[in-house]
Amino acid sequence: MNDEIVVLAFDIFGTTVDWHTGVARQVDEIATRQGVRLDAEAFADAWRDRYLPSMRRVNDGERDWAYLDTLHRESLDDLLETQQLGDLFDEEARRQLVLAWHRLPAWPDAVEGLTRLRRRYVLAALSNGGFALITHLVKAANLPFDCVLSAELARAYKPDPRPYRTAVALLDVLPERVLMVAAHAWDLDGARDAGLRTAFLERPQEKGPHRAADRAADATSDLSVTGFVELAEALGC
Amino acid sequence: MNDEIVVLAFDIFGTTVDWHTGVARQVDEIATRQGVRLDAEAFADAWRDRYLPSMRRVNDGERDWAYLDTLHRESLDDLLETQQLGDLFDEEARRQLVLAWHRLPAWPDAVEGLTRLRRRYVLAALSNGGFALITHLVKAANLPFDCVLSAELARAYKPDPRPYRTAVALLDVLPERVLMVAAHAWDLDGARDAGLRTAFLERPQEKGPHRAADRAADATSDLSVTGFVELAEALGC
Repeated sequence: MNDEIVVLAFDIFGTTVDWHTGVARQVDEIATRQGVRLDAEAFADAWRDRYLPSMRRVNDGERDWAYLDTLHRESLDDLLETQQLGDLFDEEARRQLVLAWHRLPAWPDAVEGLTRLRRRYVLAALSNGGFALITHLVKAANLPFDCVLSAELARAYKPDPRPYRTAVALLDVLPERVLMVAAHAWDLDGARDAGLRTAFLERPQEKGPHRAADRAADATSDLSVTGFVELAEALGC
Repeated sequence: MNDEIVVLAFDIFGTTVDWHTGVARQVDEIATRQGVRLDAEAFADAWRDRYLPSMRRVNDGERDWAYLDTLHRESLDDLLETQQLGDLFDEEARRQLVLAWHRLPAWPDAVEGLTRLRRRYVLAALSNGGFALITHLVKAANLPFDCVLSAELARAYKPDPRPYRTAVALLDVLPERVLMVAAHAWDLDGARDAGLRTAFLERPQEKGPHRAADRAADATSDLSVTGFVELAEALGC
């Protein structure tokens, strides 16, 4: 496979960065500033649980295109209402919470693996996060990508085939020359439907210590690795 | 101005990389392989002379969107025909010539200046080159941009306001927070019309030793510098 692939496209939330730890930490800081006590990890999980349904409504045409910051804000407002915390988080605190998704820690093996892979392949971030969000996140975490791609460029969310096809078209390659790397079976299923090759990258802590992440056995893929350095080695870097 | 700017958008051909030297060198190599003797610098100049008119036809709606590789190929075919060289360059040689624009040398001060500027600002490549072309070029020249933007994302060419506005929208900033940096007065005029701030970066050798490049006196801009390091110093980096 190695000789045919020219582009590696990486999912970001959960695959390249640790959203669970990063969002929970910032929720905790912002809540503390507001004088609110809450279980920040459970809050981050409940917020993330609204992620796939909110994007599905866009992909299904139930609503017009809205970028991820807007979906995050709407699901935050809903979550605060549901948890009867609405009065405790003002506009500024809510804006800061939404921006928590712009600044998340890379998994410890990501920079080393990407640095090695970049010598041989074009590395693209291919995320459901907005273009600005991913640009900020990649910069803050020093992730050595060659370019940022975003579902925003296709105005449709993964796993809809449109964002994968837009990435392939912009990079001017055949779809089978692109390897989608993700920790989620649903992302790889979408990539395969669009003609891309797929690599499952296992991130057992992706949803924190209390909830189960996708495992290799759950995913159908051309390649399966347990981390970024193993991916570099599997691809001859 | 420094405190208001958050994004620096850089023109690429002529401003960040030396297209004249890079294209002429590759034209010379490919022509030599084909057994053709020609003046490679004059050929590169004549090819580049067809650049602005070819983009204007797209912006004016005289033809559908076509990315820069297509325009380069069409103007190459036209140039070879005009110079009665058509029989001497086969399909493969023409493909290689078009790809010459994907691999061009950075100006000697570009990497140092960009590296300093990147500590404080988001750095975007904002070029009329296609998304794949600019991704390849930035990677090959080790230019430390945070993201690649391209006229292709707006399906319109600078100086039309659409590519500048698309860049501003994708980066989710106010236009006046973006500083467009270019060696061409026409690019800065387009950026200003779209509400961006402007910096003229002088590249006197941009068109080679025999033709005059734009000079500071020709351009209207908020800031004028003679190089990337001076730009970094002017912006406090």
